[in-house]
Amino acid sequence: MDTYASPASALRINGPRLWQRLMDLAAIGATPLGGVRRVALTDADRAGRDQVVAWMQALGMAVRVDEVGNVFARRAGTDPSRAPVATGSHIDTQPNGGKFDGNYGVLAGLEVVQTLNDSGVATAAPIEVSVWTNEEGSRFVPVMMGSGAFVGAFSVGAVRAAADVDGHTVAAELARIGYDGPHPCGQIPGSKAYGAFFETHIEQGPVLEDADLPIGVVSGALGQRWYDVVATGQDSHAGPTPMPLRRDAMRACAEVVRAVHALALAEAPHGRGTVGHVRVQPNSRNTVPGRVDFTVDLRHPTEAGLLRMDAALQAACQQIERDTACRLEIKLATQFAPCAFDMSTAVRQAAQSLGLPHMDVVSGAGHDAVYLARTCPTGMIFVPCKDGISHNEIEDAKPEHLEAGANVLLHAMLQVAR
Amino acid sequence: MDTYASPASALRINGPRLWQRLMDLAAIGATPLGGVRRVALTDADRAGRDQVVAWMQALGMAVRVDEVGNVFARRAGTDPSRAPVATGSHIDTQPNGGKFDGNYGVLAGLEVVQTLNDSGVATAAPIEVSVWTNEEGSRFVPVMMGSGAFVGAFSVGAVRAAADVDGHTVAAELARIGYDGPHPCGQIPGSKAYGAFFETHIEQGPVLEDADLPIGVVSGALGQRWYDVVATGQDSHAGPTPMPLRRDAMRACAEVVRAVHALALAEAPHGRGTVGHVRVQPNSRNTVPGRVDFTVDLRHPTEAGLLRMDAALQAACQQIERDTACRLEIKLATQFAPCAFDMSTAVRQAAQSLGLPHMDVVSGAGHDAVYLARTCPTGMIFVPCKDGISHNEIEDAKPEHLEAGANVLLHAMLQVAR
Repeated sequence: MDTYASPASALRINGPRLWQRLMDLAAIGATPLGGVRRVALTDADRAGRDQVVAWMQALGMAVRVDEVGNVFARRAGTDPSRAPVATGSHIDTQPNGGKFDGNYGVLAGLEVVQTLNDSGVATAAPIEVSVWTNEEGSRFVPVMMGSGAFVGAFSVGAVRAAADVDGHTVAAELARIGYDGPHPCGQIPGSKAYGAFFETHIEQGPVLEDADLPIGVVSGALGQRWYDVVATGQDSHAGPTPMPLRRDAMRACAEVVRAVHALALAEAPHGRGTVGHVRVQPNSRNTVPGRVDFTVDLRHPTEAGLLRMDAALQAACQQIERDTACRLEIKLATQFAPCAFDMSTAVRQAAQSLGLPHMDVVSGAGHDAVYLARTCPTGMIFVPCKDGISHNEIEDAKPEHLEAGANVLLHAMLQVAR
Repeated sequence: MDTYASPASALRINGPRLWQRLMDLAAIGATPLGGVRRVALTDADRAGRDQVVAWMQALGMAVRVDEVGNVFARRAGTDPSRAPVATGSHIDTQPNGGKFDGNYGVLAGLEVVQTLNDSGVATAAPIEVSVWTNEEGSRFVPVMMGSGAFVGAFSVGAVRAAADVDGHTVAAELARIGYDGPHPCGQIPGSKAYGAFFETHIEQGPVLEDADLPIGVVSGALGQRWYDVVATGQDSHAGPTPMPLRRDAMRACAEVVRAVHALALAEAPHGRGTVGHVRVQPNSRNTVPGRVDFTVDLRHPTEAGLLRMDAALQAACQQIERDTACRLEIKLATQFAPCAFDMSTAVRQAAQSLGLPHMDVVSGAGHDAVYLARTCPTGMIFVPCKDGISHNEIEDAKPEHLEAGANVLLHAMLQVAR
């Protein structure tokens, strides 16, 4: 299955070195329970960025920083006409995040470069490793800020003006931590676009672990439709009000929860439906609830599937209104279009060439790669994480899986960059 | 159907006078939206008590106050050996209560006495009208404090030591407002127990209004079982977690809500099942909830029915645990035994003798009469309230219904006291 010249096909990244860098980076902002608190554009983020940039420079890479703080490091190619082949992710974390989310994608990229350096393998296309600003979105909205600005989903001005709850802006915090770069956001030196972009990431879900496979070839990312729903009935005393005369908003909500589960199951295997937020009024043990505010999150790999789920939700709600004598107001709060990764073939071939067991998966969550896919051929590689848990201090992943994923990244990039 | 001597059967209370007393009492602690704020043992409660006691004394009644602030007014009977026939309710209100809850029961009693006085009708048994302390329980716990202490459900010492959130005790507040009475709680002068106790009350539910009937003959009060339930699953990302791998605690809660509704409907017409309080964790729109704490309130007129409902709840939860891969911990938080009113026949006969349309109803909520029923033959009379709404400033009732209920009270008491 090798599609590039020997001896490159024999190359393997150094797993223990990758693990060591992950642990070294995780020490910056380490939390007592083994997690990381390195929220975007804080002092901890600065320290993390400084460490990663030092590693980039030690690898002989040329580093540039753009107007929204995205960091890019380039290893030169032999053919100046070739568009760079890039990889990257983020190193900001949730307030109580883990060691691997994002960090793995950046450090796997550095491992690719060091492996090429150590073996003296040149590529025709330049190789780039990027660190995208504020992927998590826990301090500054929107999420995936740096990659979104890079592809033009957000204006640079709007991103720089975004403020945290204390009024600190992205621009001011970038300047404060020394990452307000001069490079125009979205411009790639010597090229209009990347030749390809890859991102390795822990799965943040249970599918690979459940299937006992080390590699997920990510075929695309689910589209999302987020709704705010208000169920309105009538508060009444739990004792004096007979069941048939009730207008119980909690019962209406419960029927919607059930319907959301059923309509997502009907779109197996990739349909998702979640009621994650529920607020009950008056929320008293002996009062029939008169109002419940709740959310619905629907996801599907295709737009047509999302619209089927939307129609099923609307139909279910109409039936539930009749059955419960409550009113259900459904408002679409936000939506993200589904995305297909057109470099999944390269990822699959790389896994096959390495003899690594793998399966096609979809990304249920957003990633920087989902934005990059708007402007260049893109692929993602997932590796399992323990119990599917992420955004949590106990997030964990196995060294051999992380090593396998980085090898897939290496060979997928080599296929395109050779 | 008259079972007592003419001319008593022709007696009717004075509806406009009853309404005027209701409005006069409602002026004490009146709220802008037409409700009443006269919380137990506040200055407003003192003013309300003073007004009611003044009316009692103007009717020539002998007033006594007991150690927990219960007020009793007696109209003498002609036979000293007869146990008093009593009626009463409470005049404390919810913080945003209405004009009729409780007040109606006390003032209907005064109207009975004044009607007897005006017509010169003597009764063999003494007639008593009582005002029970702190029925609402919104300032001091427990609810139905005065009537509960009267029948020995709570010790006098515990009641007097009960404190509000600011540390003010019942004993101190009784003394402050001048209602720390000398009379031993639970003792009835010249008798071991009441010959009968009656309470008129607005229904606080929608049954009579729905049936368009002025009188509810209360056959008893529902027993109650209150549960605290914890549904435990696993937090997970709403995107990456396929439906079959989820352990969604909100889904488990929703299935319990559905089961509670079904098992209450199966005990029609008087079974009740309510999930009134729900707390979701982490309560984030794009996270599958890992834990939901919620309550279940089951009510039924018989202990056997309550136990059937309990068994149905337990069985449903076991099935839901299997279906959702969540754990459901069910803890009985408190319970109240069902109560049957053995004076409902007298109430029904009184309504029939007056030609008033009526139906048998059950009380879903607690009332002072439910405690009194532990020590003497007891009956309750319900009249409709607008939209079944109570514990609310917009609580409302029609003068003609209030008048009808007081006439039923008059003739039920006359049957027993003649």
